[in-house]
Amino acid sequence: MSMTVDRMQIEALVRSAIRQAQSQGAPAAHQASSTSIESPLGWVDGKPNLRVSISARHCHLTDEHVEILFGKGSVLEPDKDLYQDGFFAAKQTVMVVGPRRRMLPSVRVLGPTRPFSQLELAFTDSISLGIKAPVRHSGKIEGTPGCVLVGPAGSVQLDQGVIRAARHVHMNDHDAAHFGVANGDMMQLVVTSNDCSMTFDDVLVRADKAAKLEVHIDTDEGNACNLDAASAVHLQPMPKPCACGH
Amino acid sequence: MSMTVDRMQIEALVRSAIRQAQSQGAPAAHQASSTSIESPLGWVDGKPNLRVSISARHCHLTDEHVEILFGKGSVLEPDKDLYQDGFFAAKQTVMVVGPRRRMLPSVRVLGPTRPFSQLELAFTDSISLGIKAPVRHSGKIEGTPGCVLVGPAGSVQLDQGVIRAARHVHMNDHDAAHFGVANGDMMQLVVTSNDCSMTFDDVLVRADKAAKLEVHIDTDEGNACNLDAASAVHLQPMPKPCACGH
Repeated sequence: MSMTVDRMQIEALVRSAIRQAQSQGAPAAHQASSTSIESPLGWVDGKPNLRVSISARHCHLTDEHVEILFGKGSVLEPDKDLYQDGFFAAKQTVMVVGPRRRMLPSVRVLGPTRPFSQLELAFTDSISLGIKAPVRHSGKIEGTPGCVLVGPAGSVQLDQGVIRAARHVHMNDHDAAHFGVANGDMMQLVVTSNDCSMTFDDVLVRADKAAKLEVHIDTDEGNACNLDAASAVHLQPMPKPCACGH
Repeated sequence: MSMTVDRMQIEALVRSAIRQAQSQGAPAAHQASSTSIESPLGWVDGKPNLRVSISARHCHLTDEHVEILFGKGSVLEPDKDLYQDGFFAAKQTVMVVGPRRRMLPSVRVLGPTRPFSQLELAFTDSISLGIKAPVRHSGKIEGTPGCVLVGPAGSVQLDQGVIRAARHVHMNDHDAAHFGVANGDMMQLVVTSNDCSMTFDDVLVRADKAAKLEVHIDTDEGNACNLDAASAVHLQPMPKPCACGH
């Protein structure tokens, strides 16, 4: 648990630092739209603007592992910015090798680096790889299986860190206030999709000052509800029993 | 729509014929347990006994296509009985070839044969194969994409029939009465699973005289809720607005 908090604090610090740097260098109009009190980060027309993103399999690396895998002095090179400020898909990929000579040839590395390396797979990926990945929230990797990561300059044996990332929602404090939830609460995501609508329970709130409202689900979850073709997505607190006992 | 009804009628006839043949040849005790009024088919302890099954990718073939793919005079050879009486996984498999030289090397054929050949994929499979498979209920294949099926004796070009099977629940009339639903209604399946509980809407009721209560979801849906590790499954009619307007 302390590991999770540490990582979230780090993420929040990174986001704050980047936003500060952006607002210092940005023209007045941009500064107003992204930092004014009237319009919290990520809001559109005075309301939270829900984004639901599918996280494909990816890994997070420590600085040390980046150097082992990609060569002394290597750093992660941003290829594509993610929706959350300060986070990016790196140009680098790794090969992941599981037991029984199974492997995934190319798994994207996300940046920035972290205090612990971690591989996040969908359930389907973990079956392909022959690793039984438990559903865990990011950072809670104690007792999870390991794997071998192979890069162009070397390889790393992870003793633990292979997980199926549990669904979660990033949000800032304005979003949390809007929904009446706090960091650590659970919410529901309702996806309306032709012939395959579904409601995801257990969506963990990860609130901090600088996040934008974004649910992360994995490829299995996205495919199960055909998210790309969904007609509506709706986020709500876990329903409470109602007055009539319904 | 007429095709669906036809197929369901055929399935019901097959089940009835098989049950009749079974009960004629069966000892009295077995006959009593499977056909007595006190214990409807598939019930345990006087209640419906819900089974939720993951349908992995598979295909259904016409008699003609069985002969083209596996040789003149070939029939489907049962390898493993399915939960629904009279249905089986065949020993035979086919290779499925999609566009852009992508293929699935071995897709199981299910029996008995049908009036139309049909390939049922999870969304993940359809992405691997490079075919955009629409979510459809079995038999509703008008306007769906096709593919090439290859067997040891020949190949078949399907002009249509590649679908992602929409979730559904087989049940008999006793089950339907128990839940207060009718053939063609929609229900909800609630899966309770550690950190990945979810509720599936749009579960189509396919009721006939001889089916056993069984929900069919695909591998994406099963993986999304980690069905194998689920602690509870619950089937219910779609909720109605309640008295207090909740």
